[in-house]
Amino acid sequence: VATVPLIAEEAAPAEVKAVYDDIKSRRGVDRINNFWKALANDPANLARFWEDMQRVMGKGALDPLVKELIYVAVSITNNCEYCIHSHTAAARQRGLTDEQYREFLAVIGLAARANALVTAMKVPVDQQYLV
Amino acid sequence: VATVPLIAEEAAPAEVKAVYDDIKSRRGVDRINNFWKALANDPANLARFWEDMQRVMGKGALDPLVKELIYVAVSITNNCEYCIHSHTAAARQRGLTDEQYREFLAVIGLAARANALVTAMKVPVDQQYLV
Amino acid sequence: VATVPLIAEEAAPAEVKAVYDDIKSRRGVDRINNFWKALANDPANLARFWEDMQRVMGKGALDPLVKELIYVAVSITNNCEYCIHSHTAAARQRGLTDEQYREFLAVIGLAARANALVTAMKVPVDQQYLV
Amino acid sequence: VATVPLIAEEAAPAEVKAVYDDIKSRRGVDRINNFWKALANDPANLARFWEDMQRVMGKGALDPLVKELIYVAVSITNNCEYCIHSHTAAARQRGLTDEQYREFLAVIGLAARANALVTAMKVPVDQQYLV
Amino acid sequence: VATVPLIAEEAAPAEVKAVYDDIKSRRGVDRINNFWKALANDPANLARFWEDMQRVMGKGALDPLVKELIYVAVSITNNCEYCIHSHTAAARQRGLTDEQYREFLAVIGLAARANALVTAMKVPVDQQYLV
Amino acid sequence: VATVPLIAEEAAPAEVKAVYDDIKSRRGVDRINNFWKALANDPANLARFWEDMQRVMGKGALDPLVKELIYVAVSITNNCEYCIHSHTAAARQRGLTDEQYREFLAVIGLAARANALVTAMKVPVDQQYLV
Repeated sequence: VATVPLIAEEAAPAEVKAVYDDIKSRRGVDRINNFWKALANDPANLARFWEDMQRVMGKGALDPLVKELIYVAVSITNNCEYCIHSHTAAARQRGLTDEQYREFLAVIGLAARANALVTAMKVPVDQQYLV
Repeated sequence: VATVPLIAEEAAPAEVKAVYDDIKSRRGVDRINNFWKALANDPANLARFWEDMQRVMGKGALDPLVKELIYVAVSITNNCEYCIHSHTAAARQRGLTDEQYREFLAVIGLAARANALVTAMKVPVDQQYLV
Repeated sequence: VATVPLIAEEAAPAEVKAVYDDIKSRRGVDRINNFWKALANDPANLARFWEDMQRVMGKGALDPLVKELIYVAVSITNNCEYCIHSHTAAARQRGLTDEQYREFLAVIGLAARANALVTAMKVPVDQQYLV
Repeated sequence: VATVPLIAEEAAPAEVKAVYDDIKSRRGVDRINNFWKALANDPANLARFWEDMQRVMGKGALDPLVKELIYVAVSITNNCEYCIHSHTAAARQRGLTDEQYREFLAVIGLAARANALVTAMKVPVDQQYLV
Repeated sequence: VATVPLIAEEAAPAEVKAVYDDIKSRRGVDRINNFWKALANDPANLARFWEDMQRVMGKGALDPLVKELIYVAVSITNNCEYCIHSHTAAARQRGLTDEQYREFLAVIGLAARANALVTAMKVPVDQQYLV
Repeated sequence: VATVPLIAEEAAPAEVKAVYDDIKSRRGVDRINNFWKALANDPANLARFWEDMQRVMGKGALDPLVKELIYVAVSITNNCEYCIHSHTAAARQRGLTDEQYREFLAVIGLAARANALVTAMKVPVDQQYLV
């Protein structure tokens, strides 16, 4: 259960409805997922977040699939269940193969282990990385 | 200051020296960075970690640059200063451009914000992501 | 399922019962929530935590509602589901309005984003903040 | 040392300069702190973040001082050194007293302890919080 | 629901089956828990992780029960629900008493509180700890 | 630089001085480390934390060295530099050997890796752990 009501499409005020319609048309989907329905309690923030998401996650110098993997990596480390599920699904939709996902998970595990060891031993940063 | 001595190359026992030499030859560098010198207090673990790193971070279904970015994403979220510095440097060595880094940072910021909002509102996972 | 039994009111030893009664009378509620029932496996710790909670969360130089919001901010960032639910509810009971909650969430999102960006870029602390 | 160059005021392109000038005039300060100088490597993101910060952190249904405390609470839990220093300073500038800061710290400590205990014991959320 | 299929024992390829059999025989259990069934999507990683787990968690200079408690302490702080449940159970199997668990939880709570306070106040490390 | 003044022994009010003296006499040391000098800005909290620390960290069903290792495990995962340094030092003082520390670090690394993998794949908790 969310701490806020999820704003259903049929109950959405015009300002929210406009964003919902834009999400559906740009993504080619016919329903709005819960993240937006929760955000919609703050219509101005909803519109702004949707703008940011399009601006940031689209094709640029990095591939959209790569961006999704970076997004999932952050979400795993922050332990955001919703974000892990929705963006792993988004990565698959953008073409993530099983082989790539296996490699992704191996990097996640390696980095988490290295992070813990380095932090435990307080390894000083080498001079070469500081220029 | 580290919580363990950093094992200098000239003081390394044979088992450690062999790993150091392998790192230098495979990476084409002439010095060992502090991470390995700290790990070297446990020679068996050093050898195993170096094996894992080669196995995991090399070219596969994902590009080595992409793997570095995923590694940095985890390290930022875990706030591991050493790892951020060393793997951002590694990503640059693997060809990360300024434009790509800007986009990377924008994804990091967006994911962190979304993670916090979703966690705050306890948004329930949509059924569609659970199949 | 908890890793410890939840100590029901009718099964509580006298030492625990006394704390339960104090919680109910001071809070004006007629049932004990699960946090205390789990803590009650360590009666001394239960009594001490309840003392701390009253001492810390009551009216002082900061308003109790403000204290709840700070508590929720920590709980979100630590991703403690129980704590988010129970203290968001407590904040509402202390008068949190929808408008205030919207603003609270916006701050949470902004701070999380800024934290990630600053950590990613290892921005050095300005001299002016170090005096 | 940051992973990006800090864009000095005199070296800033027009787009960045405009934001710097706005920051200085609205805040009544005569220098730009490092956060903005790091963000300025991505001028579009700099402008957008500055807009967000004004929109979110200003006076609303919550007091600006309360917003700073929420911001610092997130930053402490994320362990963002820069953010802790800069926003604790900002809170003091907005009138935070020593007494209020003492109470703030006590809440931070209490919440962190409760979060850890609840997570350790996996306390199930009471039904009453789920409506 | 996991993001990968859980590889059932009867559907496991030979390479995975061999690890499953080793787990069952060394642990004296007759079923494989979900962690291994998820890892089994990457058979090489499965084998390697099982090797690491035996090497790391067995009797050495530290007692296996102590190792489990350290493992649980990390898992609590990372908020890994599965890991908390499975390794608290493992600790109990290795003889953890209720009294020990109470003391363990008290240390967890104290450390989390101290960590938050120290991070909030940015307490400088004493010279004596840096030699 | 701390966000609060460190209260020197010679400047401490009587209430703080009494705690300082107790720390020095019980620990057999002749100086107070910075953690207490920072906490001392809130004398009531200082006294209470010192009480808690003695109550929690002393000999009980768990050995004081084991308690220090659990404390360090939490501090590493929370990335609290001060706490890692001071409690790793405390563990050494309580007899931690190099061999034990190596094993401790191996457990830390293994748990961090497993936590990340399990969280990434959202492995469902086995029924057997939920009773």
